[in-house]
Amino acid sequence: MTVDFTYRARIEHRPGQLAKVMEAIAAAEGLIGEVRTCELTRSYSVRELTVEVGSPDAADELRERIAAIDGVEVEWCRDRALMLHEGGKLTVEPCRAVETAQDMRDVYTPGVARACEAIAEDPQTARKYTMIGRSVAICTNGTRVLGLGDIGPLAAMPVMEGKAVFYRQLAGISAIPILVDAAEPDAFVETVARIAPTFGGIHLEDISAPECFEIEARLIDELDQPVMHDDVHGTAVVALAAALTACHRTDTELGRATVGQLGLGAAGYGIASLMVEAGAQRVVGFDPDDANAERARERGVETVGEDEVLDDADILIATTGQPESIEPDRIRDGQVVLALTNPEPEIDPDRALEAGAAFAADGSMVNNVLGYPGIFRGALLAGARRIDPEMKLAAARALADLAEGDRMLPEVLDRAVHERVAEAVRDAAPERERAGASG
Amino acid sequence: MTVDFTYRARIEHRPGQLAKVMEAIAAAEGLIGEVRTCELTRSYSVRELTVEVGSPDAADELRERIAAIDGVEVEWCRDRALMLHEGGKLTVEPCRAVETAQDMRDVYTPGVARACEAIAEDPQTARKYTMIGRSVAICTNGTRVLGLGDIGPLAAMPVMEGKAVFYRQLAGISAIPILVDAAEPDAFVETVARIAPTFGGIHLEDISAPECFEIEARLIDELDQPVMHDDVHGTAVVALAAALTACHRTDTELGRATVGQLGLGAAGYGIASLMVEAGAQRVVGFDPDDANAERARERGVETVGEDEVLDDADILIATTGQPESIEPDRIRDGQVVLALTNPEPEIDPDRALEAGAAFAADGSMVNNVLGYPGIFRGALLAGARRIDPEMKLAAARALADLAEGDRMLPEVLDRAVHERVAEAVRDAAPERERAGASG
Repeated sequence: MTVDFTYRARIEHRPGQLAKVMEAIAAAEGLIGEVRTCELTRSYSVRELTVEVGSPDAADELRERIAAIDGVEVEWCRDRALMLHEGGKLTVEPCRAVETAQDMRDVYTPGVARACEAIAEDPQTARKYTMIGRSVAICTNGTRVLGLGDIGPLAAMPVMEGKAVFYRQLAGISAIPILVDAAEPDAFVETVARIAPTFGGIHLEDISAPECFEIEARLIDELDQPVMHDDVHGTAVVALAAALTACHRTDTELGRATVGQLGLGAAGYGIASLMVEAGAQRVVGFDPDDANAERARERGVETVGEDEVLDDADILIATTGQPESIEPDRIRDGQVVLALTNPEPEIDPDRALEAGAAFAADGSMVNNVLGYPGIFRGALLAGARRIDPEMKLAAARALADLAEGDRMLPEVLDRAVHERVAEAVRDAAPERERAGASG
Repeated sequence: MTVDFTYRARIEHRPGQLAKVMEAIAAAEGLIGEVRTCELTRSYSVRELTVEVGSPDAADELRERIAAIDGVEVEWCRDRALMLHEGGKLTVEPCRAVETAQDMRDVYTPGVARACEAIAEDPQTARKYTMIGRSVAICTNGTRVLGLGDIGPLAAMPVMEGKAVFYRQLAGISAIPILVDAAEPDAFVETVARIAPTFGGIHLEDISAPECFEIEARLIDELDQPVMHDDVHGTAVVALAAALTACHRTDTELGRATVGQLGLGAAGYGIASLMVEAGAQRVVGFDPDDANAERARERGVETVGEDEVLDDADILIATTGQPESIEPDRIRDGQVVLALTNPEPEIDPDRALEAGAAFAADGSMVNNVLGYPGIFRGALLAGARRIDPEMKLAAARALADLAEGDRMLPEVLDRAVHERVAEAVRDAAPERERAGASG
């Protein structure tokens, strides 16, 4: 995995000096990103150069290379991601400041008692008089974090904060990381259920399979508010959106197509289930793990051999965790190929296209930040008790509709995209549940 | 309990009309607060008048009185506190927005993995790379909320949000309400302990006695971060500060004084314990509940009869929950009297002074918002594992030192006050614990 390092260097200000620094970076196979000129005098300049290198060790070597140049001094070199994580990424702020005695009367004692009494009398008003109606807890036990595996809840915190940043920035939701020190489903479910009254929705994140399936199912069952494991269902929504775009571009009709899935773990299960709900003519899948296969069968997936998946699929979706596991000669002419294992896909999209695929993409193009903010926003707007399949399908269709030009999916940082997803999800929520909707 | 209502009225713009409205308010025994003129034309004005009335029913009656005036139309009348609680009082915000692909690389994938790895390798770095070092969870089960009693966790949310507003505004702490649906100590402790890794400190709030004592003691024992029940210890710090001011004004020396406590429930126990720690020559107390008396004895309080408390106390502190329960003829000449039951004290301060007290105050003057923000801020700055008695005493002394002129306590909304309290608490934390301090 590459890392970005920033080097702050004081460089003698004469022709050729900066070129030497650039050459040193090139020699270390570093990719130069941002270059910031901090000081510029007649005799020297101070610059901060951000470089993508192969590893932290390579970054140290590069530091030495730069420092070895005559007339160049490295003031510091820092891991850019770590530098930008310092202090954390979230802050909890008052909606309005308390500045006067009247403010104090209104929002604290004695006024606050009025809001407490109103909620005690009618619990539904909690959505009106507190932040609950626009809040989501991002709950993890850290048992499967990114590609890092079971690193525990504390080390998962930077991911949870990152997810929360997007919730607020893209969908106006106040999201709160909750690290749960409980690897077992019983303890995890019990803990989250007990604190659930605090939040409008429960977002599950980075929980290992198969525990994640039981945890999610039990929480959906026990709680009155929307619960969703993002790694399963959020990812599925975005993958379905990509598949819908591909169908559109290749004149494939999902209702007449066979979807073939290699890998039926957390992500594969979620995608396959949603493909069934989306009305694919046939969804076939293969996973060497019997429990995974059985779980997919329960959702309507036909489990077959690996060869049959490859042969029959009009839309081939791979989530195997195994890089370069699909040989180009297995690709059929006109196939849609989504090879989603990160960071190295089952088959490189370019090679798949060369081999005859009509459309190909990898996991780097399927960013699940496109899904969850709008999905939960829509569910909260609707006052929905569940995020049901119709709501997920509506989100996927909205994303596919918003993919313009030759883009497979819309721009992730465009707020308007998430607003449209939220509206689609809200409109797809069951009518009867929309009485308690929050604004 | 009085409530503030705001009336929006359209009033014919001719002499005497507004006076009639004011008279109607006076006739209903309403106290006029803010008057806002929203519109002013040749023929009419629209004004929002905020009025403190005796009850919501009285507010409705006042509405009819105003509406009955010829040429006056009430557009709406609303409970001001409820109005200002709409939408809740907190929002979770990113420290910086994610705007570019490089931002995304830095704070989300792949950069975020660097922070996760750093924490997995050294858990202490969580304070550096996440918000944990400047966050506090405000945990309640809603079993004793304000004077409202056991209204449950959901209805307690407005209070928790209010506490969090002050944390951020006065001490820069990101505080997160956590409603725990568990009245029993076992379940409560287990739940909070499991989510504790998420937070730098644990603030307990509005939990009924005697469960609160067991809950707090067990969490202090189990957790590595500071835990404090504000209703017990935060209140005690502010009450001690008030007592220290009183001692200073009346030339009483705490080390030579007898402190007499009527009532040894949650607040009384906290104050009595801190008085012992503060070095009062003698602390005597009375509570009709045997368990309360026993608990106080364990902290060095001498339990005696009610009469002996009243007779012996140089500093008399009442937290009995019983309004007007101290007769003026029981007040001794030169006594310091803190009658802290809210909203009606055991004896009105003016009557206590008339009866010979050298100094008297009631609960409305002892605002615990003066305590907890600076106490937790100081503990987090020190990287302290506990909030020990020395830290509480330091906070109380700092508050007493900051009371200027004839004030008993400093101004609650003055940030500089909380900063000074935080510094005092940080400096009082045990030296050995300050290695892991956060900035």
